[in-house]
Amino acid sequence: MNKPLILVTNDDGILAKGIRELVNVAKRHGDVVVVAPNKPQSGQGHAITIIDPIRVYKVDAFEGVDAFECSGTPADCVKLAKNVLITDRNIDLCISGINHGSNASINIIYSGTMSAAREASISGIPAIGFSLLNFDHDADFSGACWAADHIIKQTLDQEKDSVPLLNVNIPDLKPPEIKGIKICSQGKGQWVEDFQEAEDPRGQKYYWLAGRFEATTDNPDSDLNALQDGYVSVVPCSLDLTDHGQLDNLAHLAK
Amino acid sequence: MNKPLILVTNDDGILAKGIRELVNVAKRHGDVVVVAPNKPQSGQGHAITIIDPIRVYKVDAFEGVDAFECSGTPADCVKLAKNVLITDRNIDLCISGINHGSNASINIIYSGTMSAAREASISGIPAIGFSLLNFDHDADFSGACWAADHIIKQTLDQEKDSVPLLNVNIPDLKPPEIKGIKICSQGKGQWVEDFQEAEDPRGQKYYWLAGRFEATTDNPDSDLNALQDGYVSVVPCSLDLTDHGQLDNLAHLAK
Repeated sequence: MNKPLILVTNDDGILAKGIRELVNVAKRHGDVVVVAPNKPQSGQGHAITIIDPIRVYKVDAFEGVDAFECSGTPADCVKLAKNVLITDRNIDLCISGINHGSNASINIIYSGTMSAAREASISGIPAIGFSLLNFDHDADFSGACWAADHIIKQTLDQEKDSVPLLNVNIPDLKPPEIKGIKICSQGKGQWVEDFQEAEDPRGQKYYWLAGRFEATTDNPDSDLNALQDGYVSVVPCSLDLTDHGQLDNLAHLAK
Repeated sequence: MNKPLILVTNDDGILAKGIRELVNVAKRHGDVVVVAPNKPQSGQGHAITIIDPIRVYKVDAFEGVDAFECSGTPADCVKLAKNVLITDRNIDLCISGINHGSNASINIIYSGTMSAAREASISGIPAIGFSLLNFDHDADFSGACWAADHIIKQTLDQEKDSVPLLNVNIPDLKPPEIKGIKICSQGKGQWVEDFQEAEDPRGQKYYWLAGRFEATTDNPDSDLNALQDGYVSVVPCSLDLTDHGQLDNLAHLAK
């Protein structure tokens, strides 16, 4: 039997430590192809490149792995992988990350990491985004790798009667300190922002986005609660953004 | 009583015809402030600007309306509006568009127009994205304006016991030809892509995203069906991306 084909991408760029760690985990479970942005793309949401052309080059960045750096966004990387770069085999799993920083709660909406996974899911490819709750360039990914190893194996072993799209966040702990892995729903929260205002060398005003994340009253099974308690959180995600509970409350708009 | 304060933004840029048309509709219903990108931002998804500073300048672009052009994404525009540019009043409604092109079905995920509305919704501001099924720079927005006028009025008149986040798409028809306005769920579909491959003047290969949208088997109450039948579609959207139906199917991942 052929080994599964695993596409690896991220939003911190192909040189980030997180993707190197994820490639090493992925190699235990299948044949690996990397297609990742050539520069950091944090906060890119589900951006795609329409107005400009995209460049992609093969690079020798990972031992024993075909790898490509791409000028586009994380979602572009997945589109290029499945339409241009990998045409002789089906992709069995797309994994994205390991992101340097949390994508729990509402952060999934801003996340380039999760947009790559979502793009794969739209095409019917099982997909998982992994994010570690540590922004450092040189963060310790041992806990994240422990979780990724288990979740990748279990997902590949599972019958393919549905296409999972998973948002996995890992607390900033070493494996022995992690309490376990919990299935969660998306926690509620928002960023409280205060733009930093300053002047450039030519006296022109500019703003720089700053702020802190604040959780709001939350459901007990949320990803935020699980992470706070020392668990890895796994949130199954939907491509259907309809608020079905509101469908009957909008009769005043119909005409 | 004070008039409502309506924030208008878009993703086609402050000079697009669609936002001019939307501002004219909004002025009938309240005080209007425009904060919009200084260039087209189509396909930006929910991108935000983290790595770079943002510039914003007041411009005299709409009669009787405070207007600002912003170097950032549609989501940045909303963040700047509520945190920096409009601090003396609450924003009663955020409207985004009118987009030149459809944001029905899965397109909501790629849509800068809807990301601006979503950003407002995260902050508790009722928000509506409007999109016309015509990509032309000089499209006829008369049908879209007819729909926007009705939906804006009804939304402002409604009791504020929930925060609506609406994805409104308008068929490319004049008002007498539009059959009506329907409340819908998000239709299923995907882009079938074929990147155009070419060489630049220096012989370097590049790729340009191309493709066509394909609807898949669909629910009868979908936005795609409504639009095909000549109706305006209104999809209420959720900020919670959890696939609640999958929560019980992932026991193999827990540990």
